[in-house]
Amino acid sequence: MSRKIANPAKQADGKDYLAHIAYDSVVFGFSGDKLKILLMEYRNTGLFALPGGFVGRKMNLDDAVRAGLEERTGLSGIYMEQFHTFGDCNRQDASVLKKIMKANGIEAEKDHWLLDRFISVAYYALINYKAVKLQPDALSDSCDWYPVDALPQLILDHGKIVEKALQALRWNTDDRIIGMKLLPEKFTMKELQQVYENILGEQLERANFQRKMIASGLLTRHAAQFTGKAHKAPYLYSFAEKKTSVF
Amino acid sequence: MSRKIANPAKQADGKDYLAHIAYDSVVFGFSGDKLKILLMEYRNTGLFALPGGFVGRKMNLDDAVRAGLEERTGLSGIYMEQFHTFGDCNRQDASVLKKIMKANGIEAEKDHWLLDRFISVAYYALINYKAVKLQPDALSDSCDWYPVDALPQLILDHGKIVEKALQALRWNTDDRIIGMKLLPEKFTMKELQQVYENILGEQLERANFQRKMIASGLLTRHAAQFTGKAHKAPYLYSFAEKKTSVF
Repeated sequence: MSRKIANPAKQADGKDYLAHIAYDSVVFGFSGDKLKILLMEYRNTGLFALPGGFVGRKMNLDDAVRAGLEERTGLSGIYMEQFHTFGDCNRQDASVLKKIMKANGIEAEKDHWLLDRFISVAYYALINYKAVKLQPDALSDSCDWYPVDALPQLILDHGKIVEKALQALRWNTDDRIIGMKLLPEKFTMKELQQVYENILGEQLERANFQRKMIASGLLTRHAAQFTGKAHKAPYLYSFAEKKTSVF
Repeated sequence: MSRKIANPAKQADGKDYLAHIAYDSVVFGFSGDKLKILLMEYRNTGLFALPGGFVGRKMNLDDAVRAGLEERTGLSGIYMEQFHTFGDCNRQDASVLKKIMKANGIEAEKDHWLLDRFISVAYYALINYKAVKLQPDALSDSCDWYPVDALPQLILDHGKIVEKALQALRWNTDDRIIGMKLLPEKFTMKELQQVYENILGEQLERANFQRKMIASGLLTRHAAQFTGKAHKAPYLYSFAEKKTSVF
């Protein structure tokens, strides 16, 4: 877990990495009422970015991303999914990179490999919010949680990457996976609804949501616990065993 | 549509392209009873591969893929979806590339850019089988349809790319899109079932399939045409207007 990645910005020719290829990760965690993602703040710049990195010449792409995520979060065995590769020409903006490097005391030559065009392979990860121990990278002075509905301005096309990650989450065919990775093993209907509302970015009608979720067959309801209080505790649910899909 | 792409194999340093980045496309068409994909056969090698290419330094990734697809098929406005980027180290096999280049009269130096490591961004496309006018690329002597359940051995990890494309098709949340792009506007229940069977790679029970499809609300049934024959023609269906999803 404490494997140290060298600072790629200090290597002018980037010969230890695959040129033109970066990765970015959208790391989701559920704080109990809000869906949040991890952002890095670059030292002395006020610039925010998704945690990301580069692919070592002898490293599998997935392994590079996983190593980066593990380093940022202190977790291993993270659930992650690659969801899109961003390859437009106009996502390049050498001035942003120069600013970040300069703020870190690195004067980049014009032909520094990081100033060239990059495509970015993007992943989303679903992690246990409470288990994380955050760690900034070589160029950042913070790595912290931000609610998806109130993000600061992000560099380059990172805002677009977050949008697409949310879309990928919405399209994930297995609601169980999303729920299981973001919620505790047992959860209330309210918590489940909040996860959905955060992912969808809209309010859902409570009774309707509850009826549909129960009809879906996704959930197992557990016996209500006797609390001795006037208002009984809400039912707890967990995800049922996977059933086969229609087709 | 007849835009000519230079032969990237003849450019030893690959300076007009982004190093390390290739794309591959899995082009699906429905012949009436079989789901098929396009494969290139490289001249004098017996090697089969997915149609693919490289990304010009000043070209958006999506545009490069679209241009390649248009050149191979003679079609414009093709429906395509990026589905995965393959980035393992072991997908590199310089000997295969050397063989293909040699068979085309190109003696590649050891540091030829095409012999270096590549990641491949993979797309699937759904096209109108009958409208296509196939065109091999600079290194191939044929570009032709092959049924997905009887493909020849493919180079590198292209077999794995096809598998993942089929999985992406199965996971596509909008059955309407798949059906609309692969079937004529009006189709029989049998044709629809055959598309599904080919995508899923398994036989479906007729009555059960029909019942589920009708219950799904995806389809509009059209009035049966009077044919004057003893056996009446099968009902024709089309895809209904999009309804909103559960959430």
